[in-house]
Amino acid sequence: MTTSEIITIGDELLIGQVLNTNVAWIAQQLSALGINIIRDVTVGDDENEILRTLKECYSECDVVVVTGGLGPTKDDITKGCACKLFNCGLTFNEEAFQNVVNRFKNLGYEITESNRMQAMVPDKCIPLQNHNGTAPGMLFKENVDGKTKIMVFLPGVPLEMKGLIEDYVLDILKDTYQNNGLYYRTVLTQGKGESFIAEIIKDWEASLPENVKLAYLPQYGSVRLRLTAYGSDLEKNKAIVNKELEKLVRLIPEWIYGYDDDTIEHAVGVLLKKDNLTIATAESCTGGNIAHHLTLVPGSSDYFKGSIVAYSEKIKNDVLGVRKETISKYGVVSKETAEEMSQCARKLMNTDVAIATTGYAGPGGGDETSQVGTVWISVAGRNFVISEVFHFGTNREINIKRTTYNALKMVYNCLRDKKLQ
Amino acid sequence: MTTSEIITIGDELLIGQVLNTNVAWIAQQLSALGINIIRDVTVGDDENEILRTLKECYSECDVVVVTGGLGPTKDDITKGCACKLFNCGLTFNEEAFQNVVNRFKNLGYEITESNRMQAMVPDKCIPLQNHNGTAPGMLFKENVDGKTKIMVFLPGVPLEMKGLIEDYVLDILKDTYQNNGLYYRTVLTQGKGESFIAEIIKDWEASLPENVKLAYLPQYGSVRLRLTAYGSDLEKNKAIVNKELEKLVRLIPEWIYGYDDDTIEHAVGVLLKKDNLTIATAESCTGGNIAHHLTLVPGSSDYFKGSIVAYSEKIKNDVLGVRKETISKYGVVSKETAEEMSQCARKLMNTDVAIATTGYAGPGGGDETSQVGTVWISVAGRNFVISEVFHFGTNREINIKRTTYNALKMVYNCLRDKKLQ
Repeated sequence: MTTSEIITIGDELLIGQVLNTNVAWIAQQLSALGINIIRDVTVGDDENEILRTLKECYSECDVVVVTGGLGPTKDDITKGCACKLFNCGLTFNEEAFQNVVNRFKNLGYEITESNRMQAMVPDKCIPLQNHNGTAPGMLFKENVDGKTKIMVFLPGVPLEMKGLIEDYVLDILKDTYQNNGLYYRTVLTQGKGESFIAEIIKDWEASLPENVKLAYLPQYGSVRLRLTAYGSDLEKNKAIVNKELEKLVRLIPEWIYGYDDDTIEHAVGVLLKKDNLTIATAESCTGGNIAHHLTLVPGSSDYFKGSIVAYSEKIKNDVLGVRKETISKYGVVSKETAEEMSQCARKLMNTDVAIATTGYAGPGGGDETSQVGTVWISVAGRNFVISEVFHFGTNREINIKRTTYNALKMVYNCLRDKKLQ
Repeated sequence: MTTSEIITIGDELLIGQVLNTNVAWIAQQLSALGINIIRDVTVGDDENEILRTLKECYSECDVVVVTGGLGPTKDDITKGCACKLFNCGLTFNEEAFQNVVNRFKNLGYEITESNRMQAMVPDKCIPLQNHNGTAPGMLFKENVDGKTKIMVFLPGVPLEMKGLIEDYVLDILKDTYQNNGLYYRTVLTQGKGESFIAEIIKDWEASLPENVKLAYLPQYGSVRLRLTAYGSDLEKNKAIVNKELEKLVRLIPEWIYGYDDDTIEHAVGVLLKKDNLTIATAESCTGGNIAHHLTLVPGSSDYFKGSIVAYSEKIKNDVLGVRKETISKYGVVSKETAEEMSQCARKLMNTDVAIATTGYAGPGGGDETSQVGTVWISVAGRNFVISEVFHFGTNREINIKRTTYNALKMVYNCLRDKKLQ
């Protein structure tokens, strides 16, 4: 089985200034080819640390993917490290230089000496032309003790890294390594905790074939169950995983809302489409984030019509149509206001379903009846309205995320139970 | 100087199923204490790999923070690895068990045998009670060759990990390690590429003190410049960094929009507040994401009034008030529609400023005049309206992100240049 390690380079990652999204994306691509990733390592812009990590990882596995440190500035030292590791010099690559010249012409930028340096590549590498930036990728392929090893260096800018992987690296990996059998599927559940689910499925779990692993991934009150089969025979592993997945689904059908990369907004979309229903949102504390999530799903314009982000009270009254008396009598964060918001949104945008949120997302806010952190969520249908109160804490970002997730879960459950027809 | 490594455990991270947000958050906390992080490592749920990595990291640095694999299910094997590493057994912790009992009582869940197991902790550790979940943290503190070493194990669920770090770990680290001098500041720029900026500041960069490093972090057409001072004297390093930062600001004043953790939405908020202006959005392709970003800023209710997410044409007409003729004559993705959207939003929500977006975010969509990926952004003030067309590609998520960022940049530039008064 082909093994891989991913190295990401940059002080900005080590101090946590930048979220490392590259590693997850690269891992998804390699896993989809059945390549087994055994370790990810992040190091700073330090030559000794970079060289040590490159050597270590290259000795441990077949494929090493490295990102970062290929820019035009002084802190970019990865290329020098690659030359040291592979014991080679730099050579000028005309195609890479023309790429920079053309890009800069379009942008109206001047070529600097540092851009010319970016077109120098290690003489033992296969240069990969970058269609989204100035730094070319560099791929080394060697035969070590009868095995083919690949180490590829890519820029850290996600768009450039992704372009190079899609344009070149995946094809080279597919051609070089066959017989990779890693295969996995994921079942998404909501409504019960992981220890509860583990108890129900324990006999089945104990009977799993030796090469199949079950993992529990809890997040925001949702639990994802991932089944992975290891080994070299992909077709056999697919059959095993899908067979075991069927058994699992039969054990916990009522808590499953989707599979694999599905999201709760995707699951909501599937149910809306199935019943030919449309949806709108009226958002206060979530500030448009529920609408944003609903519209992340391709094709959502079939069922999502729009949203009123009614942040100020005046817009709740004037645009959305919530009565002034409701807010003054019950408060802006209340069951009554939330329910009137969802009903008004449904009528205003003429949809079958509407979601509304009103709350104090923090860190400030709150009034005499509702503390900061309190959120009301309401779901309305033609002849139906419900609402629920939550206390999601005073961290603004987390509060908004949890409110969004729970609002989508509420509407999902209502749709599943046919309450909104 | 105190050194640290962060280990994150979980197959879900290795295969890229879950984005590793823990490592960035932990790194921020440690960096804020002046602790120097030298490496992050992610490994799967594999005992050999976990043990090897724990040993390696513990031998290389002073503080090792480990997350993941402490749940109640079979795939959670970190606790066993900790016992092997520290050569100890498990002991029942009454306080941790009562925590589970109380949590489950509130949730109406039943206690299972696996929950009881979660209250067993290694007998050489200091247990850290988890107020957001069932798995206690476990902190080991040892004297090795005259130096104090700490290794702490935390659950992988971000909320639980964060709670334990804030409730216990930071205080213990502060008490144990003094004299950490790492200090950094970041300058945020937009409008020019990194090689252009590097050219302007090269003499200053060459004259930086030896213990100060400059890093360039490009992202979405913005370049962040981070100055870091290393060494043991925090006060001295603060003074050096702030002095050099002042010099840098004088070299490129017109491209700076903020500092450190500022965001473009924060910078927009600062300018709106300064001039006592209000803002609204009318969003089609961004589906509420600009409103979401504006409202991520605490206190944004002072200037942000609301948004109309007009996904369907009917809502563009009926709620927002865009004329049918404009859309039929010029198309829904056009300069004219975008400008009418921003002007209608401004009037409807009675604000000083409004942003509008209309585009084909992909992967489908497009018409005879506008390809998929095409986006129009417009900014309107009382006596001012502009618009710009972009081609952000057909990856829906990336298109939405880039449109959001560029819309905020456009309004920032208009505010800075006093065009919206």
